[in-house]
Amino acid sequence: MAAMEVERVRCATTGYAGEEEALPLPRELSVEDLQKDVLLSLLPENGSSPKILDLLTAADKREENGVAGGWRRKGEGEGEGGKGQGEAEVCDGAKPQSIAGARTDNNSRRSMRCRSLPITEPEAEDEYTGEKEAYMAAVLARFRHTLEERTRNHLGYPYNLEFEYGALTQLQCFSINNLGDPFIESNYGVHSRQFEVGVLDWFARLWELEKDEYWGYITNCGTEGNLHGILVGLSLQQGLAGTTVKGAVDDLDCVIATLERCGYPRDRFYIHCDGALFGLMIPFVKKAAKVTFKKPIDSVSVSGHKFVGCPMPCGIQMTRMCHIERLSRNVEYLASRDATIMGSRNGHAPIYLWYTLNRKGYQGFKKEVADCLKNAQFLYLRLREAKFGAMLNSLSSTVVFERPQEEAFVRKWQLACQGKIAHVVVMPSVKVNKLEAFVRELLASRKKFFPDGVVVPPCIADELGADNCECPDCHVA
Amino acid sequence: MAAMEVERVRCATTGYAGEEEALPLPRELSVEDLQKDVLLSLLPENGSSPKILDLLTAADKREENGVAGGWRRKGEGEGEGGKGQGEAEVCDGAKPQSIAGARTDNNSRRSMRCRSLPITEPEAEDEYTGEKEAYMAAVLARFRHTLEERTRNHLGYPYNLEFEYGALTQLQCFSINNLGDPFIESNYGVHSRQFEVGVLDWFARLWELEKDEYWGYITNCGTEGNLHGILVGLSLQQGLAGTTVKGAVDDLDCVIATLERCGYPRDRFYIHCDGALFGLMIPFVKKAAKVTFKKPIDSVSVSGHKFVGCPMPCGIQMTRMCHIERLSRNVEYLASRDATIMGSRNGHAPIYLWYTLNRKGYQGFKKEVADCLKNAQFLYLRLREAKFGAMLNSLSSTVVFERPQEEAFVRKWQLACQGKIAHVVVMPSVKVNKLEAFVRELLASRKKFFPDGVVVPPCIADELGADNCECPDCHVA
Repeated sequence: MAAMEVERVRCATTGYAGEEEALPLPRELSVEDLQKDVLLSLLPENGSSPKILDLLTAADKREENGVAGGWRRKGEGEGEGGKGQGEAEVCDGAKPQSIAGARTDNNSRRSMRCRSLPITEPEAEDEYTGEKEAYMAAVLARFRHTLEERTRNHLGYPYNLEFEYGALTQLQCFSINNLGDPFIESNYGVHSRQFEVGVLDWFARLWELEKDEYWGYITNCGTEGNLHGILVGLSLQQGLAGTTVKGAVDDLDCVIATLERCGYPRDRFYIHCDGALFGLMIPFVKKAAKVTFKKPIDSVSVSGHKFVGCPMPCGIQMTRMCHIERLSRNVEYLASRDATIMGSRNGHAPIYLWYTLNRKGYQGFKKEVADCLKNAQFLYLRLREAKFGAMLNSLSSTVVFERPQEEAFVRKWQLACQGKIAHVVVMPSVKVNKLEAFVRELLASRKKFFPDGVVVPPCIADELGADNCECPDCHVA
Repeated sequence: MAAMEVERVRCATTGYAGEEEALPLPRELSVEDLQKDVLLSLLPENGSSPKILDLLTAADKREENGVAGGWRRKGEGEGEGGKGQGEAEVCDGAKPQSIAGARTDNNSRRSMRCRSLPITEPEAEDEYTGEKEAYMAAVLARFRHTLEERTRNHLGYPYNLEFEYGALTQLQCFSINNLGDPFIESNYGVHSRQFEVGVLDWFARLWELEKDEYWGYITNCGTEGNLHGILVGLSLQQGLAGTTVKGAVDDLDCVIATLERCGYPRDRFYIHCDGALFGLMIPFVKKAAKVTFKKPIDSVSVSGHKFVGCPMPCGIQMTRMCHIERLSRNVEYLASRDATIMGSRNGHAPIYLWYTLNRKGYQGFKKEVADCLKNAQFLYLRLREAKFGAMLNSLSSTVVFERPQEEAFVRKWQLACQGKIAHVVVMPSVKVNKLEAFVRELLASRKKFFPDGVVVPPCIADELGADNCECPDCHVA
């Protein structure tokens, strides 16, 4: 009887947008969409959540009653590329591909689908909704577990994964949106501009621009800041020079010197500094060339989620006020809206940044940078001792080394790879004990490829130079 | 003695980036930066938090000792525009300016600074750090209070401010980043692609595109989606037609008909549908023209934080897979990276969307849209009964009416205004009792401007048409 009622409710809920004729896509979502295999993979390690198993059983029953037939989507199981719902290819944890060198050809994009957690229609019957809640709770608990594990074993990307924002949980229930320009009032009251401007003031000070001479905003990522820098540069119809402040950190001074040597007057060039990661580390490295608006630069962007650490990507974009004023005069659209690229802006990001800057401050960052450089040096030395080809720029905390041969190892530690090399970015969340564990496992992993115990390192002289290579040829030389 | 120690520590912390010569900007942040007036405004309504008052007292003492002098920034108090820290102009709650019609001239941007919550260096002494924590806790508590009040009294923007994401709080401690293309694997393991693809599948179904024929991603706002649509359209070197699906919702069919009438072949135009708010409401309005990929459209974007409701701005961008494939072939840069605009993408947004779609489902949204339309009708009728000029499109939940004269009222209810009109967007978080309170206050507010009791509504025939105007001239006619 109960099953019948469920069916009736489901029939009543059929139909998208009032169109009643047959549609090629199924009109409602069913339990089959739960993708049994995905669901099973989400179960706690020790197995049997009775509620979830009930849900699966219900799905099976429905299938027996012939209800499931309609849920095979058009094109699935027909010809090449057709896959049943339950056989979805899993990219998460499948054959790894290097990020930096990843190529997107048509085949890979078409054939490789990430595991998808389906969305199912809630049922009207209360008891069933309880099952749905249980399913979602199980998904989230499992996901949290995965995130914990993935966060613990992470070395490849320049994200500081260690932060403590418990005090900000109370704000998660608000739709905080810094609509438009940070310095122009909006009637939307649920914003965090006061935090945003506090953060911007801090960076203006770091980069030596007066309060009334800067304009900036908090972006959703470093790329948005770069896009904005390019947009402003192009709008002013000046020559545009970009500088990525990484590795070779004196690029900036070199760019400026070249422009001056070639006789470019100041008003004919625009320099945007892509600070990404190192924009926030460099100010704390004594030997590094300084990023400051006292030099003839025009805009700087840095990421907020990298060295600072933040639950979501964000960045800081800063430019000279005079550029924005000219931009507003030149472009009527911007004048009547605002000079940010996006209208709506994440209002939580400024609060995360504000909170961390207040807690750590300039001195806190300085200490963390010093620790990162020291720990990177530690890793570098350990690798060389163990006869791994490796390189470390003295101003950087990125250790580049020969790519480990075992793909499972690369995946576990989430190493970014490019060709024959891989790198570890030593962030504040990466401590010595983690690096020790990493090297230990790396050695064990390498052993598997040299069963007779004689290790022959590959030649990476082309990538890192002969000095940094441990291959027999380079090493003898 | 303790005060002396603090001073010593502060001296030791002086200096940015190792440069020891005099800098025009002060090198460290001090208690004065707490901006006493801002701090006072942050105190709980009933006043005296002893810790915060101690902090203020400490600031006063320091000033007496002559330490504060250095904290006046260059340019402050000199000539026009110079303002001491404590006198910062407050845009939050100051003279309101309409969002839609806001103009950014140099003067307004230069002179109007939002209230800024300063960032101060933490002190090394533990006791003092306790004060700092207390200050930050007070700031956050006060801010939460403000957000609660501002969320309660909000009618002007199309954001659903009612959501319950308590179950997702456990994920706030992770740096979730969906680097690059949702369908291309990344070695960065702390991602939520499986939720993202689940959400995209749901929308593909809503807009009638097969799973293997769509490409899309979750953006940081509707504008990013529009930007992406334009980028793809331009890259394909086709004519680009945009359609904003709002108010006049049959624009789309009209655009298509016009293109066909003019003889444009299908491969010479690209239609991007900016669904913003109504992209998610229209499918549930029976009379509305349908947004579907069965029509010759090429991409659709909608906002996720508007009708769905989400703590931060986000959106869904979807296009035909064939366009992205051509794009990847045409643009080497994209082929070697990904087809999203931003490299880093907020990994929390997909989980919020996934959670709400699962909980509410198609039927839940349908019911909410019906409620919104009904409540909008209720507001419209109440306004006309009370002799307010007003208009309501039968397919929309936006009630447009004569702009209230009292600015404090406009601010309190966060109404978006343009010229002589204002509007209320009835979202799921706006219930009848809130609308009743709003109309009651609106009537009381209007009374103040007609002390003799005879109300003369302004003429808004130009804006809304004579039929919707209640001014004496239009009303007689």
